[in-house]
Amino acid sequence: MNNTKNTDLELISENKMFGGLQRVYSHVSTVCNGSMRFAIYLPPAALEGKKVPVLTYLSGLTCTEDNVTVKAGAQRISSELGMIFVAPDTSPRGQDIDGEDDSYDFGSAAGFYLDATQEPWGKSYNMYSYITQELQDVITSNFDSADMKRQGITGHSMGGHGALTIHLKNPTLFKSCSAFAPICAPMNCPWGEKAFTGYLGSNKDSWKEYDATELIKTSPSKATLFIDQGLSDNFLKEQLKPELLEIVCEQVGQALKLRFQEGYDHSYFFMASFIEDHIRHHFDAL
Amino acid sequence: MNNTKNTDLELISENKMFGGLQRVYSHVSTVCNGSMRFAIYLPPAALEGKKVPVLTYLSGLTCTEDNVTVKAGAQRISSELGMIFVAPDTSPRGQDIDGEDDSYDFGSAAGFYLDATQEPWGKSYNMYSYITQELQDVITSNFDSADMKRQGITGHSMGGHGALTIHLKNPTLFKSCSAFAPICAPMNCPWGEKAFTGYLGSNKDSWKEYDATELIKTSPSKATLFIDQGLSDNFLKEQLKPELLEIVCEQVGQALKLRFQEGYDHSYFFMASFIEDHIRHHFDAL
Repeated sequence: MNNTKNTDLELISENKMFGGLQRVYSHVSTVCNGSMRFAIYLPPAALEGKKVPVLTYLSGLTCTEDNVTVKAGAQRISSELGMIFVAPDTSPRGQDIDGEDDSYDFGSAAGFYLDATQEPWGKSYNMYSYITQELQDVITSNFDSADMKRQGITGHSMGGHGALTIHLKNPTLFKSCSAFAPICAPMNCPWGEKAFTGYLGSNKDSWKEYDATELIKTSPSKATLFIDQGLSDNFLKEQLKPELLEIVCEQVGQALKLRFQEGYDHSYFFMASFIEDHIRHHFDAL
Repeated sequence: MNNTKNTDLELISENKMFGGLQRVYSHVSTVCNGSMRFAIYLPPAALEGKKVPVLTYLSGLTCTEDNVTVKAGAQRISSELGMIFVAPDTSPRGQDIDGEDDSYDFGSAAGFYLDATQEPWGKSYNMYSYITQELQDVITSNFDSADMKRQGITGHSMGGHGALTIHLKNPTLFKSCSAFAPICAPMNCPWGEKAFTGYLGSNKDSWKEYDATELIKTSPSKATLFIDQGLSDNFLKEQLKPELLEIVCEQVGQALKLRFQEGYDHSYFFMASFIEDHIRHHFDAL
């Protein structure tokens, strides 16, 4: 990726919350070929100039940076502990690609946190490089209080897949990892098969780069993977498949804390119920 | 109002959250002449059959029962303390009244928690009777764990006006009262003047029944009114006017805990930051 390090930000909104500032920015992204948005919560400690750890949250299908910002209540505990909470958008936008907005599980709001190799997607659908490189530069250049050596990554559903794969491929960049109802084995579920075919093509060897269950086989992480999964989640059996991840973790000795939560579904009501545990997990690990 | 006590409920949604159940119901309302919705959070204690206190939250202009349910994080502390949290919609819907959906501050989503005397609004725009009578019957008939003798009321903006006035007129029904950025003196602000003129007519004597600042003059409450108000709230000077309420409280000895919060605006980011203090206030008072 040709990253020209354009890190100028435009402030879209700012709201005081729990003593800190919830902001949304847009900026020109080179790797995503256009304007991208992200939300960032700066806790009081960061506003006072202290260096604080950074937790990046990757959202699921259909979401923008807004959903978790409004629904999860992450700011309360981020404020208490002193953590910056970053929530990027889920895909490039407005690329004028045929079919870009036709389905909820491909194209807009469905970037799947990979770098597309198939045209016309390859020019802009590069969320992997966006999260691991370009957004890193943007945060580093604009937020002195962000301690970029203490970063964790989490996410929900498609974003849980993103968090797991990005951590496994970048364990020194994102030292801690957790996920809410993640797509654990995208090579073996309809959402993943559709996305990988469209973005990466039909050669399944290339898919393994973005499949947590495959990545753990070859490069397990020293960190404990912390996952919450609701047992009343409609997508559990067909799309999420934590049991496949669990088997591989056992085989290779990957530390895994997988909690099945009775009665919880796939919604933000589930996510909000356990976000405190996740933020504390990252804070303690960093 | 002719209340036929039709208390049958239709469950619209149910999500587990913080160990309890967040539900949305619809039901046929006699006083609002049609289908009405409300959200109710049942904490674990209620699900176990314990009698728990009930806090009713009245939302502001443009809102439905959904906003506070999704954005405020009230369920966490309701679960911890053991309180039922009820959030009704803000007006009748779909009445086919000319102009019903034309403005954000009158008609749909702007019921102002009064009983309209002007036609064509009088047939359905009776949110005062809905909150104080019909919804009471519905909750009593359907939720055994609701301790209807221990009820508090709170709200945001237009809903703060509703909470203050409904408490002042019904201090034994709703024993505790708080508000977020309430419209404190609706007779003396554009939102209130427009709503009162439309719903109640031009005789300003009838307006006093629904103006907290006026009601406190004649019938102060034994409870402490607890109000949070952001100092960066765009509506503070023109619409909300807590200073008028403050003066009257001092004059008649009405206990008032009015907190001005530096840097906070009118949004749910403000509201969510202080909802815990409010729920604890009600729990302690009940």
